[in-house]
Amino acid sequence: MAPKTMKQWRVQGTSGFDCLKFDSQAPVPEVGDKEVLVKFNASSLNYRDLCISKGFYPFPVSDNIVPGSDGAGVVEAVGKKVTRFRPGDRVVTLFHQEHFGGSLDPHSIQTAIGGLLPGTQREYGTFDEQGLLQSPKNLNDIETSTLTCAALTSWNALYGLKQLKPGEYVLTQGTGGVSIFAVQFAKAAGAKVIATTSSAKKAELLKKLGADHIINYKEDPNWGETAKKLTPNQVGVDHVIEVGGATTLKQSLNCIKLDGIISLIGFVGGNSKEPEPSFLEALAHVCTVRAVFVGSRLQMEEMIRAIEANDIHPVVDEKVFTLGQLKEAYQYMWDQKHFGKLCIKI
Amino acid sequence: MAPKTMKQWRVQGTSGFDCLKFDSQAPVPEVGDKEVLVKFNASSLNYRDLCISKGFYPFPVSDNIVPGSDGAGVVEAVGKKVTRFRPGDRVVTLFHQEHFGGSLDPHSIQTAIGGLLPGTQREYGTFDEQGLLQSPKNLNDIETSTLTCAALTSWNALYGLKQLKPGEYVLTQGTGGVSIFAVQFAKAAGAKVIATTSSAKKAELLKKLGADHIINYKEDPNWGETAKKLTPNQVGVDHVIEVGGATTLKQSLNCIKLDGIISLIGFVGGNSKEPEPSFLEALAHVCTVRAVFVGSRLQMEEMIRAIEANDIHPVVDEKVFTLGQLKEAYQYMWDQKHFGKLCIKI
Amino acid sequence: MAPKTMKQWRVQGTSGFDCLKFDSQAPVPEVGDKEVLVKFNASSLNYRDLCISKGFYPFPVSDNIVPGSDGAGVVEAVGKKVTRFRPGDRVVTLFHQEHFGGSLDPHSIQTAIGGLLPGTQREYGTFDEQGLLQSPKNLNDIETSTLTCAALTSWNALYGLKQLKPGEYVLTQGTGGVSIFAVQFAKAAGAKVIATTSSAKKAELLKKLGADHIINYKEDPNWGETAKKLTPNQVGVDHVIEVGGATTLKQSLNCIKLDGIISLIGFVGGNSKEPEPSFLEALAHVCTVRAVFVGSRLQMEEMIRAIEANDIHPVVDEKVFTLGQLKEAYQYMWDQKHFGKLCIKI
Amino acid sequence: MAPKTMKQWRVQGTSGFDCLKFDSQAPVPEVGDKEVLVKFNASSLNYRDLCISKGFYPFPVSDNIVPGSDGAGVVEAVGKKVTRFRPGDRVVTLFHQEHFGGSLDPHSIQTAIGGLLPGTQREYGTFDEQGLLQSPKNLNDIETSTLTCAALTSWNALYGLKQLKPGEYVLTQGTGGVSIFAVQFAKAAGAKVIATTSSAKKAELLKKLGADHIINYKEDPNWGETAKKLTPNQVGVDHVIEVGGATTLKQSLNCIKLDGIISLIGFVGGNSKEPEPSFLEALAHVCTVRAVFVGSRLQMEEMIRAIEANDIHPVVDEKVFTLGQLKEAYQYMWDQKHFGKLCIKI
Repeated sequence: MAPKTMKQWRVQGTSGFDCLKFDSQAPVPEVGDKEVLVKFNASSLNYRDLCISKGFYPFPVSDNIVPGSDGAGVVEAVGKKVTRFRPGDRVVTLFHQEHFGGSLDPHSIQTAIGGLLPGTQREYGTFDEQGLLQSPKNLNDIETSTLTCAALTSWNALYGLKQLKPGEYVLTQGTGGVSIFAVQFAKAAGAKVIATTSSAKKAELLKKLGADHIINYKEDPNWGETAKKLTPNQVGVDHVIEVGGATTLKQSLNCIKLDGIISLIGFVGGNSKEPEPSFLEALAHVCTVRAVFVGSRLQMEEMIRAIEANDIHPVVDEKVFTLGQLKEAYQYMWDQKHFGKLCIKI
Repeated sequence: MAPKTMKQWRVQGTSGFDCLKFDSQAPVPEVGDKEVLVKFNASSLNYRDLCISKGFYPFPVSDNIVPGSDGAGVVEAVGKKVTRFRPGDRVVTLFHQEHFGGSLDPHSIQTAIGGLLPGTQREYGTFDEQGLLQSPKNLNDIETSTLTCAALTSWNALYGLKQLKPGEYVLTQGTGGVSIFAVQFAKAAGAKVIATTSSAKKAELLKKLGADHIINYKEDPNWGETAKKLTPNQVGVDHVIEVGGATTLKQSLNCIKLDGIISLIGFVGGNSKEPEPSFLEALAHVCTVRAVFVGSRLQMEEMIRAIEANDIHPVVDEKVFTLGQLKEAYQYMWDQKHFGKLCIKI
Repeated sequence: MAPKTMKQWRVQGTSGFDCLKFDSQAPVPEVGDKEVLVKFNASSLNYRDLCISKGFYPFPVSDNIVPGSDGAGVVEAVGKKVTRFRPGDRVVTLFHQEHFGGSLDPHSIQTAIGGLLPGTQREYGTFDEQGLLQSPKNLNDIETSTLTCAALTSWNALYGLKQLKPGEYVLTQGTGGVSIFAVQFAKAAGAKVIATTSSAKKAELLKKLGADHIINYKEDPNWGETAKKLTPNQVGVDHVIEVGGATTLKQSLNCIKLDGIISLIGFVGGNSKEPEPSFLEALAHVCTVRAVFVGSRLQMEEMIRAIEANDIHPVVDEKVFTLGQLKEAYQYMWDQKHFGKLCIKI
Repeated sequence: MAPKTMKQWRVQGTSGFDCLKFDSQAPVPEVGDKEVLVKFNASSLNYRDLCISKGFYPFPVSDNIVPGSDGAGVVEAVGKKVTRFRPGDRVVTLFHQEHFGGSLDPHSIQTAIGGLLPGTQREYGTFDEQGLLQSPKNLNDIETSTLTCAALTSWNALYGLKQLKPGEYVLTQGTGGVSIFAVQFAKAAGAKVIATTSSAKKAELLKKLGADHIINYKEDPNWGETAKKLTPNQVGVDHVIEVGGATTLKQSLNCIKLDGIISLIGFVGGNSKEPEPSFLEALAHVCTVRAVFVGSRLQMEEMIRAIEANDIHPVVDEKVFTLGQLKEAYQYMWDQKHFGKLCIKI
């Protein structure tokens, strides 16, 4: 049975990582009729979490919010009307608690955990039974905790508008969480991957994950053109996982195929001094630019099925922090010391 | 039987409308095995035609090209291996002669008539039988001649990525050819239309065509927000037919729904001094921006079926020019004296 | 405030309409945290309800179930964690309470109200807030109560696999609820409708609803071929709303287009002595046969949006029963005395 | 340069394999303006070819037709207006010469080679340049010659209605050409495969090709239920490649998921004495049954891209016949002595 109190973090203000406040005696929430009490065993960090603490997250955030969208654990108790889960089930959180399928809407966008609703950086949490999913059988809780935001964003990019097909070309940028998942998902789906990085060491890892071609974007600033030449008949790539903002967008336009999709993700790298390419350039390349904001439960179910079927294991940084070390973890990620997803053992 | 010679225009250079050269004794082309000889009865002009003469069309153009993508007429003769058409059939041209379905590709994009391949501003023309379609039964040739470029672009915008559904909201800008077709197609499909214009007279026409709401963009510079408020629960519009470039794009972003589609069309209005909104703004609106470049034969077949079923009649300017008056027609269009499609009787 | 007790029907056994038991003092259910208490003002009947009482419904049914899937009313009270609705909101029930989007699955198929979960033939009911939708603004509660099953089934048939497009041909059979909605939805969407009926009077109504062609299937037993001839170039119809079973399926195969869709709906007319056509005949017509079982909340939201935008009003039989007359209503429907949806005023 | 005469087969009548007539001095066809002269190096047989000779092919066939839909070779010469190919290009035939994209229609269905138009069992053939595709770079001509019919049918089954996604389950039946391609395509796409066979030796090969589960349908007549149990949470399989007809269809219905797709292919095994399941059973399983008839050029381009990207090699029977031995090849296939595709070296 769950204890009465637990360890929990909250975000007070937007002054930086010091606004993270730790409470070792927070009350364990009561379980409503349709709710599930989850004992968290692991969580993972996203760039979004850092943005929220720093005050430059562009979507609304509740005061004193429990941070963290990503969490995995075990069902400790269920409300009397719950039918989807039983105690002992392994579960993972859904980012937008009411984004079940189709497009986000003004209601479901307000159900983001770790932003507007309480998140995962705590020992226990209650969630409506609709806001959780069964964890993949092939992953442990640390690995599972990486799926909520980065993995689902990547899946949505590849499957949310036009489904990725075997034989298509995907271009990924760098080795952030979304990009690494994109390499893994694309390879599992029989697609070809062109990955950019500036580090020989990271290039090795990307190759190990299956990337077919690696381009060092520092040595080859016109990597867009280079990527295009790597595709059959030089038609260009079908999907770009664009995480870099203005700096990289120009190259993404240079490598994209006619009618290809550039998925705009996140807010990383958006502070470049370089002028951003204009929408008219998109027009000249006859392509589609789509903003991706995590994904729906239906998509996450599909993703988990693919992860199980192909035994995909998320890449987790070798350093795993404890819940008490959350601030240090934020700083470690801010300093870009991580490789793959940064996780917290709870 | 077809005569030996015919009237025909060619574009010599890019110096403006004077580069249009008329030949009253051009040879009527011979009909290959798989080709169809078309006697043109009508053609229509697009902004693209003007751009080509002025030298700022961003795609390649052949020297001495017969201008015009849009043409309608009657089959005069067929090659011995032709199976799709018979003499007497009423036909209309396909913009990219080999864009049969799916996405454009590096080969099919080079089959644009009136640009790389000979176009429609002449009395007769031969086309591979695959590059023509049956004219809609409910339209005369003048009306039919408007379908090749503007109508198909509009159809592609509404059906090419995510299909328009009844009950969705479409925002159109102004009264250019593509926008008017979008009003007509959207209304036939049970969608709601919000149309912008700055003219009371044009507002009347838009209402007559079925537009549900009209916004005067001069009186209401924040028309994006206004449009959003007109949608149920103020969720925003599903589709924007964006023809204005930088000037209007900001408002389009303000009215778009989460996951909605802004179709970028043409090169009109792109010379504004105003700074264009950045791609990061698209990200903040979690929407999709898609460049649209005409469409495929499959789409044109679907469009023609819809035109027949709903007895849609293209809006044609009251002034119809003759083939000999092509230069005057270009100038009339350049001076924006037209309303609806500007047509040539051949 | 809601009273303590209310009128309510339950189904005890499968012996026919006498197994419908009325309770005038049933307790009004308490409202859970995430639940909404609905004061029903109207409900409507489906053939399924009759099947359940007669014992030949092919899906599982709970003992003593409150019958009825279709209900419309007003929110009387909400649980403390409810965010989607407020007291006073007009709402309509979702058939499968947890079928939010995508395909039915083994869990959501067990959330059918009026079958496995308590239904709508009562004065009050509680539902998880996820299992209700906002009523269309243009419909009263009687009209709204017809949407849950028949209307959504029809929408799913036309939009669930390949979306209906303007200009396509839809064939409907008879004047049951699903068929009439199909006529209305198809016409609102710019499609063409061929409707079959054996009654001149019903033919009149179908025409009034917009049907383009009516075929009297008694006078024309080979109506499949006739329907095919009515389509442009005699290519056949794109969608068949197949509600008749073996008797009509053969004709449906005869009128279907290459790659067209026959939507198999319900269990009406399945007791024919006539041999059913074999799957190999489907193969010979190169078509798709799809079983349709109501639809998801996402689809119902889309449908309601289309109903509002096009001001579609469901066809309701002129005889409206009271809640106390439920048995009589079942018998009236069994005797096929109704035209359009049969409704109960609660 | 091509010779004046060549070896060629024709089908005279429908009396069996003796109706195959060999001509060692047939004229090499002349090349029209838009045509390509192909020097065939290989062809492959389909069950359809046997049916045509035996007279039970259900679609129309021309008198004296050159048999064979599948052929691969090299471009020998091109007509003066050809732009898609050059001499020396390796090419493969398209089954329906004018099925470029979208659905088959009454015109394109009449362009089947080896049926209505001259086929591939000859040394040379001319084809409109639109009716050929570039051969995959990773396959030799024998392998390439297997793609036209069986491979494309399989691709269409998995991608033509709802696209196969990684993690989905595909059930294949036996070791005919379409089924083996389905195993290969599904595995390349990250799907799971359950394959049925009655032979231990064939089971080995299926495993080697990547099949995740093998069911011996002779030992386990209720293999449908068994297959369903092999899927996660026993939800059933997403796609069935149904090639067996009445005998197997019942089991296919037993294993299919809610809303899953059963692709009906070919005419094999349709002569069973066993009663076929009725369409009402499809209804009870809430699934979709779709007849598949080869596929379009767009689909074949996608398929070839996937074959190249994943280096998929068709399974070819170890016995390869010469063009002169065509009758023997037909008999060998009829006697079911082959494993994988049966090929002819030309």
